[in-house]
Amino acid sequence: MRVEELVESFQGVGFQSIEIAQAAQTMVKMKKASAKIYLTFTANMVTSGLRGFFAQLIRLGMADVIVTTAGSIEEDVMKATGERFIIGTYSADDIELHEKGTNRVGNLYITNESYCNFESLMLPILERLYKKKARWPVSEMLREIGLGLKDKDSILYQAAKHNVPIFCPGITDGAVGFHLFMFQQKHKDFVVDVVEDFKNILLSSSQDDIKGMISLGGGISKHHAILSCLLNGGLDYAVYMTTARQESGSMSGATTREAKSWGKIKDDSDAVTVIGDVSITFPLAMIKALEVLEREKLIKAG
Amino acid sequence: MRVEELVESFQGVGFQSIEIAQAAQTMVKMKKASAKIYLTFTANMVTSGLRGFFAQLIRLGMADVIVTTAGSIEEDVMKATGERFIIGTYSADDIELHEKGTNRVGNLYITNESYCNFESLMLPILERLYKKKARWPVSEMLREIGLGLKDKDSILYQAAKHNVPIFCPGITDGAVGFHLFMFQQKHKDFVVDVVEDFKNILLSSSQDDIKGMISLGGGISKHHAILSCLLNGGLDYAVYMTTARQESGSMSGATTREAKSWGKIKDDSDAVTVIGDVSITFPLAMIKALEVLEREKLIKAG
Amino acid sequence: MRVEELVESFQGVGFQSIEIAQAAQTMVKMKKASAKIYLTFTANMVTSGLRGFFAQLIRLGMADVIVTTAGSIEEDVMKATGERFIIGTYSADDIELHEKGTNRVGNLYITNESYCNFESLMLPILERLYKKKARWPVSEMLREIGLGLKDKDSILYQAAKHNVPIFCPGITDGAVGFHLFMFQQKHKDFVVDVVEDFKNILLSSSQDDIKGMISLGGGISKHHAILSCLLNGGLDYAVYMTTARQESGSMSGATTREAKSWGKIKDDSDAVTVIGDVSITFPLAMIKALEVLEREKLIKAG
Amino acid sequence: MRVEELVESFQGVGFQSIEIAQAAQTMVKMKKASAKIYLTFTANMVTSGLRGFFAQLIRLGMADVIVTTAGSIEEDVMKATGERFIIGTYSADDIELHEKGTNRVGNLYITNESYCNFESLMLPILERLYKKKARWPVSEMLREIGLGLKDKDSILYQAAKHNVPIFCPGITDGAVGFHLFMFQQKHKDFVVDVVEDFKNILLSSSQDDIKGMISLGGGISKHHAILSCLLNGGLDYAVYMTTARQESGSMSGATTREAKSWGKIKDDSDAVTVIGDVSITFPLAMIKALEVLEREKLIKAG
Repeated sequence: MRVEELVESFQGVGFQSIEIAQAAQTMVKMKKASAKIYLTFTANMVTSGLRGFFAQLIRLGMADVIVTTAGSIEEDVMKATGERFIIGTYSADDIELHEKGTNRVGNLYITNESYCNFESLMLPILERLYKKKARWPVSEMLREIGLGLKDKDSILYQAAKHNVPIFCPGITDGAVGFHLFMFQQKHKDFVVDVVEDFKNILLSSSQDDIKGMISLGGGISKHHAILSCLLNGGLDYAVYMTTARQESGSMSGATTREAKSWGKIKDDSDAVTVIGDVSITFPLAMIKALEVLEREKLIKAG
Repeated sequence: MRVEELVESFQGVGFQSIEIAQAAQTMVKMKKASAKIYLTFTANMVTSGLRGFFAQLIRLGMADVIVTTAGSIEEDVMKATGERFIIGTYSADDIELHEKGTNRVGNLYITNESYCNFESLMLPILERLYKKKARWPVSEMLREIGLGLKDKDSILYQAAKHNVPIFCPGITDGAVGFHLFMFQQKHKDFVVDVVEDFKNILLSSSQDDIKGMISLGGGISKHHAILSCLLNGGLDYAVYMTTARQESGSMSGATTREAKSWGKIKDDSDAVTVIGDVSITFPLAMIKALEVLEREKLIKAG
Repeated sequence: MRVEELVESFQGVGFQSIEIAQAAQTMVKMKKASAKIYLTFTANMVTSGLRGFFAQLIRLGMADVIVTTAGSIEEDVMKATGERFIIGTYSADDIELHEKGTNRVGNLYITNESYCNFESLMLPILERLYKKKARWPVSEMLREIGLGLKDKDSILYQAAKHNVPIFCPGITDGAVGFHLFMFQQKHKDFVVDVVEDFKNILLSSSQDDIKGMISLGGGISKHHAILSCLLNGGLDYAVYMTTARQESGSMSGATTREAKSWGKIKDDSDAVTVIGDVSITFPLAMIKALEVLEREKLIKAG
Repeated sequence: MRVEELVESFQGVGFQSIEIAQAAQTMVKMKKASAKIYLTFTANMVTSGLRGFFAQLIRLGMADVIVTTAGSIEEDVMKATGERFIIGTYSADDIELHEKGTNRVGNLYITNESYCNFESLMLPILERLYKKKARWPVSEMLREIGLGLKDKDSILYQAAKHNVPIFCPGITDGAVGFHLFMFQQKHKDFVVDVVEDFKNILLSSSQDDIKGMISLGGGISKHHAILSCLLNGGLDYAVYMTTARQESGSMSGATTREAKSWGKIKDDSDAVTVIGDVSITFPLAMIKALEVLEREKLIKAG
């Protein structure tokens, strides 16, 4: 059985499987409408094997703007330079892992060595950037880093190559923040300009653009993408995929329905919320959408 | 029945009630050990009525460092200047709310007017700051704003008054980001320096300090506080309260057990994870802790 | 601070704390309206320390009909005869526990010995019942067992003493089922009549009675109580407390809103759904309700 | 892309997608080992479009024993006689639905008419059964009902045809319970013998049989199947798929790890817990397992 047929059949199953089928349809519609597509995801998804899939989506023209977190940036760079994360278990002995220099993210492991390698990578990059200028909006900095990576499975590389800006409003919240701080200690005039990047994300679409959102997980990346679209008139299409629920009033669990009260999503938009682990729900919906779009010749050649 | 007795009795109940009783004990222990206490929370908790409780905790010396999000900042300022949020329902008609200019956060409502008032507040503050200097680390800026608020229930005001720094690594992710951008348009040399604030949070404690964490909710505020403590040798005491689960590998759902693999929490630390809505679990545990600490004269006079 | 004041203050906090405050109010209202109160709970709550609280509520007249599962029955009997469950941890080594004859339920432990003691208790009880008659509706059998227990903290004892019927539609799903089967092997005409008990639960209230429901957890006990009330015209008051969500379409996660589509709850009823661990949410709401009712002299002397 | 390839690729993704890939492997292993396979599911899955898939699995020899709830029985019968459930939305106006005689289960609707048709179906069936004998164990009764259905997509029909017993320990908890009660009113000696059915489920496998479990959702069906296997020496293979979590100590959320403390699952068994909506996770894992088994000619011709 093909994935496409399975997702097709989900229309008649019920509960979240229906929502996945509708998410796939909404993804198809936003592309057909030539919407500007905002793709947001959290770092755990880059830790997972979805990283290469995100890179491929950029190549296929399924993401026009990306919003993510500092963790995503560093893990993309680590993997681009050869680090491989290990598949483990949720019930591992964490004290034993710590003694071995292994860090756990759910059922995945990252070694301390990966972070050391990342450190030795960052310094020459920052030196190179600083020679060009002292004040950098985050997205421009990420573009420069991406251009140097040369890994077709890298999100930063594909984004730089296809002129897709990557916004990261919380850039200092990760190992990268530590390296930026160390660098600034030596170069006091070095500035990472998050305010200018707010201008950049606002200018990444206009009131007149049709806008679509694919938001995976919650937190600052979800909120930031939605906020910038709200300020540009609201979304025409939205797919939220998350494990968080609305009951505690968090941004992560906020539904597409709640978003309408804010004007984040237009009243007559096509909007779907899928509750479940994104490592499962997103590939299902997106593979279905891609097969439809490919048949209708609406995506770039892979 | 007193809250203290109820939480005491939770020791013998089971499931998450036991974890709450242990969270209260861990809070008492971190204070008794004169730990530097990091308190982190997300914006929805400031939207809720916990805001005044957070302000009180700062006054009582139960928080030495605060890490939060842009939403918390703006809602604290709005409420300090008289805005009152409305209690509604989860199943409201969101399109109708939108037409009335009302924005929903779970079962709470914020009016558009509140955001307009916030806008007219921010401009003179930014003018005043800019006259002092052009480049501001976030925590210094928040201190200046706090000093001007004069509301005893304000988090920013109490923090400024008691020299408790507030870190907000994702400062542009909110209405405040928009106002910073507008201001920078007119004053090109105006810079919000997030990198220097990473230095500031690192210097907020040392390797030698005993460190405790009370982390409410997930996202960037949880991660940032933990990261800075990791870089300073790890936590001795930790209470995580959240609705997120570990299964999807998100930071929000990461447990205190997982944190040990990273060295974020020391192997022999006192660490508790409580799953549940923080609007319930946190007051229960903290009120119990405060009553014990008050009896032992370990907190400042309220 | 008193629990009553805390729950009072929850009215102004937000998210699930508001729902708890409203649950307390609905509990007060159902008692004031002299509603017939259906209390349902799952076995894990009897495993936990809530057992004595349930027994007390029966004594106070806060439960007129009880619906629960086989596990609740056997754990109530075990505890009534002196077994004490142990407080442990979620991350215990389960293979080691198994080797020691210890069975884990979340962070609580039950020994194999408790089950052996239960077995030796049940045989004389069944012999005694069989001498009276061969065919027993479940609720009558549970009443007979309860009368023999003489433990004021026992649910079965208090229910028998106060003429509160306990319904258990899935009576064979537990150790008790095994003992019934062994007994029937020797006495072929011994019959446990679940069908007659359906009549009994239907007759436990009439169309004219005002009916209230306090449903803790999900599964068969929740469904059965609601079903019997639906067949008697629907509920006037309902409080659902659970950790399950509506997204997967399960009965356990079904909300009071969904219940209205079925007529399970009347359209104009007072109905609240509280999401969270019942070991926390239920004592909070119920203690508040009891303090109000006691002041208004609406409950029996404790 | 084929579903099989997608699930294969899940091995390298992370979080719950890994668990799905392992669930598929465990399903393959239990079949290869000629295990007796226990399949349990809750009524919402029969409400959903999984019903036909369950019927197909029985035909293919992937289920040797079934344990489910009363709701599953009645919805299987309703659909076998032509009822079609409607796909709706979670945010429907429930009072409006009620006025139209429509009952909501998540995003699915069932009409009152379906229940009326079910009533007129049950009476002649019960008359026919009663003519044969007055005392019926549940599984024998369900077999008789199944033989009369003649719908290849019916679970009861396929189970009866392939000698797969269906156990339903809570048979009175549904519309079927009401019809049994009405029938017993006229025929006082009519008895549904749940105790004898406990013998039947115990005899459905022996200590020597290799045993596997596929448990979908929680509640009484999950517990009952596991209990009967525990009494027969424990499971060699187990796949639990559910949205419930372990934190509240419920049976629904109990993990395969916790089950080892009880001896429900053997210490060295192959056991996987997958958290997520079964309408998505189960088809993915099972389709993958079936494709492997078909290639190795280990399943009956579909």
